[in-house]
Amino acid sequence: MEKWYEKKTSDSGVIISTRIRLARNIKNRPFPGRLNEKGALSILNQLKDAIAPEEALIFEEMTDKSKDYLHEMVERHLISPEFALKTGMRGIAALEDESVCIMLNEEDHVRIQAVCSGDDIEQAYVAASQADDLIENSVDYAFDAKFGYLTSCPTNAGTGMRASFMLHLPALAQTGGIAQIIQAAGKFGMALRGMHGEGSDPLGCIFQLSNQATLGKSENVIIAATKSLAHEITEQEMNLKEKIMRDASIVITDKVYRSYGILANCRTIKLNEAMALLSNVRMGYIWNILDLPHPKANLYFIMMEIQHGSIIKRAGRHVEEKEEDCLRADFVREMFNV
Amino acid sequence: MEKWYEKKTSDSGVIISTRIRLARNIKNRPFPGRLNEKGALSILNQLKDAIAPEEALIFEEMTDKSKDYLHEMVERHLISPEFALKTGMRGIAALEDESVCIMLNEEDHVRIQAVCSGDDIEQAYVAASQADDLIENSVDYAFDAKFGYLTSCPTNAGTGMRASFMLHLPALAQTGGIAQIIQAAGKFGMALRGMHGEGSDPLGCIFQLSNQATLGKSENVIIAATKSLAHEITEQEMNLKEKIMRDASIVITDKVYRSYGILANCRTIKLNEAMALLSNVRMGYIWNILDLPHPKANLYFIMMEIQHGSIIKRAGRHVEEKEEDCLRADFVREMFNV
Repeated sequence: MEKWYEKKTSDSGVIISTRIRLARNIKNRPFPGRLNEKGALSILNQLKDAIAPEEALIFEEMTDKSKDYLHEMVERHLISPEFALKTGMRGIAALEDESVCIMLNEEDHVRIQAVCSGDDIEQAYVAASQADDLIENSVDYAFDAKFGYLTSCPTNAGTGMRASFMLHLPALAQTGGIAQIIQAAGKFGMALRGMHGEGSDPLGCIFQLSNQATLGKSENVIIAATKSLAHEITEQEMNLKEKIMRDASIVITDKVYRSYGILANCRTIKLNEAMALLSNVRMGYIWNILDLPHPKANLYFIMMEIQHGSIIKRAGRHVEEKEEDCLRADFVREMFNV
Repeated sequence: MEKWYEKKTSDSGVIISTRIRLARNIKNRPFPGRLNEKGALSILNQLKDAIAPEEALIFEEMTDKSKDYLHEMVERHLISPEFALKTGMRGIAALEDESVCIMLNEEDHVRIQAVCSGDDIEQAYVAASQADDLIENSVDYAFDAKFGYLTSCPTNAGTGMRASFMLHLPALAQTGGIAQIIQAAGKFGMALRGMHGEGSDPLGCIFQLSNQATLGKSENVIIAATKSLAHEITEQEMNLKEKIMRDASIVITDKVYRSYGILANCRTIKLNEAMALLSNVRMGYIWNILDLPHPKANLYFIMMEIQHGSIIKRAGRHVEEKEEDCLRADFVREMFNV
C-alpha cells in the first residue's frame, strides 16, 4: 500500500504535510513514567482492546525492537524520539498507509498522530478525532473541567493537541530569513524547528511549525491560528522567491540543475549534502525552473528514505558510514535515473 | 574539414598531442625585431611567394586582426601569445586542419609548427620538415656551420627546434606529484609547463613537456629524448593511477560521475571549474571508470572551445564575464547531452 508521503502531489508546494497529535491518559491510572511493568502491561492490554474494533489499525509491540528498527520509525515520524529511547512495555497501532499512528505508553498513555499531505490539517484533525473517539468508547480519559485533558507534562494539558505543519523553506533558509520567522512564531505562541523536531538541524530546508500552548484555547482556534501562520510564512517564502529569481535567476537555475545532475550521478554522498541537493531540486519544481523528469518518488519521500535508519533497514544489516554513503548514493541515483 | 584535435582518438591516453616547432630566418636580413615596416613587408612577400607553390597552405594576413581574434588563435595554439601581442606586418600560412601553421615575422622570420594527435612526434617532424623544405626551395636561411640555424634569441639557435608533448596528468596533479616531475624534467634539459606554455596555470591538469636546449644535439636526438621522458611521465601517471584506484576508487568514481552530471546540467560555469570537471571526465574514460556516452567531441577539443576567445568568436561579439560563463555552460551542456 502506498504510504501517505509517497503521493507525488506533495512536491507541489511549500507545505509538505500537516500533523495533529493528541495526548491522552486513562483516568485514575499513574502516568507511564510512574508505571511498573505490570501496570504498563495492563494499560497496554486495555488500550489494545479499545483499538481492536478498528481492524485497519494494526497493533505492533515495540518493547523488544532493536535500536536501528526504532530509529528508522523515528525518521519516518511514525514514533517520537523519546518513544524510541524509552524502555518498558509499549506499542503502536497504525494504519497501513501510516497516516494515523497511535503510540501506547509513550510519555502519556495515548499519543494519537494523524498526518495529511498538503495543508489539509482539518482532515488530519478528523482522522485523529476518529481514533480518539474509538478509544474513548471503552476507556475513561483523565479529564478535568478546568485543565482539560490531563497529561504527564503540564505543557500538554488542555486540548492535549499539537497541530503542526511541515514546511519546505529554501528561499528563507538560503537568505537567512529563518531566524526572523522563528522569532515571530514565538510571539504567536508557535515554534519553528528543524525536520526532526526540537534541537534538530534544518536538514534540506525542511521546518516544522507547531503550536506551543495547548491550554486555554479550543482545538479549532489552535488549528486556525497555526494554519494562518503557516500560510503567512508560505507567502513570505514565495515573495522572497520572486526577489531571488529577479536578482539571481541564473545562479538559482544553475544550482537546481547541478543538484539534479549530481544526484543522478553520485557514487557516494553524505546525508547533509543529499538533503541540501534534494531541497534544491524540490525548489526547482516548485519554482517552475526545473524542466527535467520527476524522480520516481516525491522528494520528501526520498529525503526520508536516505536517512540513516532507512538505509540500514533496506540493507537488512548494520553498515559502516562509508558503505552507508554509497548505499545512499545508489538509492538516490536509482530514484533520479528516470 | 575536421581539425586535428576534433578526432575522438585523442581521449584515449595520457599523451594528447605532440608538436614540432622550427625557427628559421632569412640570410642577410635583420631579425623581425629590427625590421622597419618596409623591410617587414618585403620579408612577408618573399615568404608568401616561397609558400605559394603548396596550395594547401592558406595564407592569412595578421597585421590588422582584432585582439579577440588573435586571442582565440592563441588559445587554439595556432599562434604564439607573443605573435598575438606584436604589431607590424605579419601573417600565417596554415593547413585547413590546422595541423601545420607557419608564423611569418614572429620573433623569427619563420616559425613552423606541426601538430599530431597522440604521441606520433616523428610524423609531426616530417610535416614540419616538409614546410621547411618548401620554404628553403626559394629562400636562403641564415645558417652557421658552428651555431646551426641562427635565431633572434640565442636560446633557439642550433636546430631551431622545439619538440613538445601535451600531457593530461590528473593523477600527478591531484596528488601534488607534478612539482617533482618539473624538477626532474629540468635535470634532463626539459620543461613542464601549463597548457598555455610559460607562466600559465595548469588548467584541467594539462601540461606541456618540451626540450629547452636546441643547440649541440641533432633533431633526432632531441625528439627521442623528449619522447622518452614523455613516456616515463606517462608511466608514473599510470602507476599513480593504480595506487589511487586501489586506495580511493569510490572517491574517484564519484568525482568522475559527478563531474559528468554537472557538465551535463550546469547553466553557468567559470573556465577553471569547467576545465577541472572536463579533466575529471577525461580521466574517467582513460581510467575505464566512466560508463556513460562520450560527449559529442573529444574532451581536449571541448577544453579549447570553452576558452575565453573561442566563446567570443562563436558569439560574434564582445560578451561580459557573466554572459561568457552562461555561454560556456550552454556549450558544454550541448556537448554532454548525448
